[in-house]
Amino acid sequence: MTDVVPAVPSLPDVPALDATAEAAARARQVVLTKPPGALGRLEDLSVWVSACQGVCPPRQFERARIVVFAGDHGVTAAGVSAFPPEVTAQMVANVDAGRAAINVLAELADAGVRVVDVAIDSDEVMAAIAVGRAIADEEVDGGADLLIAGDMGVGNTTAATTLIASLTGSEPVAVVGRGTGVDDAGWVRKTAAVRDALYRARDVSDPVELLRVCGGADLAAMAGYCLQAAVRRTPMLLDGVVVTAAALVADRLAPGARAWWQAGHRSAEPAHALALEHLRLVPIVDLGMRLGEGTGAAVALSVLRAAVATLASMATFEEANVSDSSS
Amino acid sequence: MTDVVPAVPSLPDVPALDATAEAAARARQVVLTKPPGALGRLEDLSVWVSACQGVCPPRQFERARIVVFAGDHGVTAAGVSAFPPEVTAQMVANVDAGRAAINVLAELADAGVRVVDVAIDSDEVMAAIAVGRAIADEEVDGGADLLIAGDMGVGNTTAATTLIASLTGSEPVAVVGRGTGVDDAGWVRKTAAVRDALYRARDVSDPVELLRVCGGADLAAMAGYCLQAAVRRTPMLLDGVVVTAAALVADRLAPGARAWWQAGHRSAEPAHALALEHLRLVPIVDLGMRLGEGTGAAVALSVLRAAVATLASMATFEEANVSDSSS
Repeated sequence: MTDVVPAVPSLPDVPALDATAEAAARARQVVLTKPPGALGRLEDLSVWVSACQGVCPPRQFERARIVVFAGDHGVTAAGVSAFPPEVTAQMVANVDAGRAAINVLAELADAGVRVVDVAIDSDEVMAAIAVGRAIADEEVDGGADLLIAGDMGVGNTTAATTLIASLTGSEPVAVVGRGTGVDDAGWVRKTAAVRDALYRARDVSDPVELLRVCGGADLAAMAGYCLQAAVRRTPMLLDGVVVTAAALVADRLAPGARAWWQAGHRSAEPAHALALEHLRLVPIVDLGMRLGEGTGAAVALSVLRAAVATLASMATFEEANVSDSSS
Repeated sequence: MTDVVPAVPSLPDVPALDATAEAAARARQVVLTKPPGALGRLEDLSVWVSACQGVCPPRQFERARIVVFAGDHGVTAAGVSAFPPEVTAQMVANVDAGRAAINVLAELADAGVRVVDVAIDSDEVMAAIAVGRAIADEEVDGGADLLIAGDMGVGNTTAATTLIASLTGSEPVAVVGRGTGVDDAGWVRKTAAVRDALYRARDVSDPVELLRVCGGADLAAMAGYCLQAAVRRTPMLLDGVVVTAAALVADRLAPGARAWWQAGHRSAEPAHALALEHLRLVPIVDLGMRLGEGTGAAVALSVLRAAVATLASMATFEEANVSDSSS
């Protein structure tokens, strides 16, 4: 008799957000010196941060960390990208040198950047998930109070789009985008590659098996990172289509994980909107970005900080001796 | 024979943006280490800042200034607001104490805040416009490299909505919003007040005369401030419905001024969207905010800073030895 290896090994349960802190935050928003609801989405975001942190008023983030998962994708041989595959390594060097978009945006948003090259054989999906979880653990143990996931890898939007199409039951033509800017012929090749992968995945319902068939080690590691953020009660900002594909898988692996995430931005990739809808997440900004690296989330971080700051630092009607609308 | 006083006295011409710097910025965006266009709106904003500053790469803003124009509106006697009129002065004190939403958001976005109480008789429209222009001059002479206008005044969305409805030929019911959160009966009173004012303004086409009939001294001062920013070649972020109403007037007084402005955010007020459409401005963020004070623009400032930072600091393909998509 051989050992039975479960497809999905047991993962820790995802904890619930703190309902008491959430209620206190909602109540505090009403007595701040502004009409109730006048800060719109900022109010909801501030309440969410309080619920994640278990405290009201919330604390401003002191150690926001962006982890960029780099990976190679064999599908690039099929001509699905506007860039040659060696660009992945070149761009990792650019991030290490501090001159990529994510470095510039992270500095402005007061966040640290770390690149992880996920050079694991893509058959070892569980190992890659474990790598991602271990990275989240390292960051949280190191004091991270907000996590962001970023991606970097020529060909990775093809893998991400396949995962999203499979998990949402969508047609390739409806979800395949231009990625880094592939031309019409490239888009046809990319759509064919997604269709082929979906055919291979046609009987797969298990998320780990799906990562094995369609994904890459980088996507598996990102999924592990996203779910572990939730396990460790650490709020997370998602980025674009690649990170959100991994998050969609992560929420299947660890149901409820999405409560710990916000969607940083809406990317120009069609599959992204679909994945966000399935996760019931509404993007914070919508700027037509499609770069990856965590750049959309880095821009959204400034908005999230604004939300935290208002709930943490504004005066109440009573403190400021301002008449409220019911007086 | 009596002197003829022109309805609109001569204003300096609005200078054009710098086309050479704009072209250089567009060209530089293409060689930065990212797919062309991948930063979406951030690219357009960065090019605009270069064109305003007349230099590429652009300089990060070192002295962003928010001027909040406070004013009283007699229309509050008609019960158009959820708040009593004394709240205007109380909120001015709250800003002076540094505990209002605009203080908190300005600090986070590294901008300074100044409140101007426009206590001028509303008949003196030209005097109020001159006050606003003088304030912009003071700020620019003091080194301001980005200006933001904010508003504070119970009843001011009623005046702003009237101006926008008049200048765009809209029906009151289509444009009147809830302001600070007026109830249904209050909304009916507010709509009636807007309709009455539109009736008084039915034959008015001159923008100064329109400010006299519908506006308030604060709106006139804001209009002067907005147009003078353009005259002084200083980029400006507009805020919500009140500031944008003033901007709509300012662009009539000084045609072309709008080229020097960006819309910071889309507010929840219906008249705001209409005014933005007429100015052909697309908001940077859309967060359901409806507070005024310059708060939406303050949040957008972080996004504008992100745009400037990418064009100013990212490596080019050549600098980073990264293969571009045409290689």
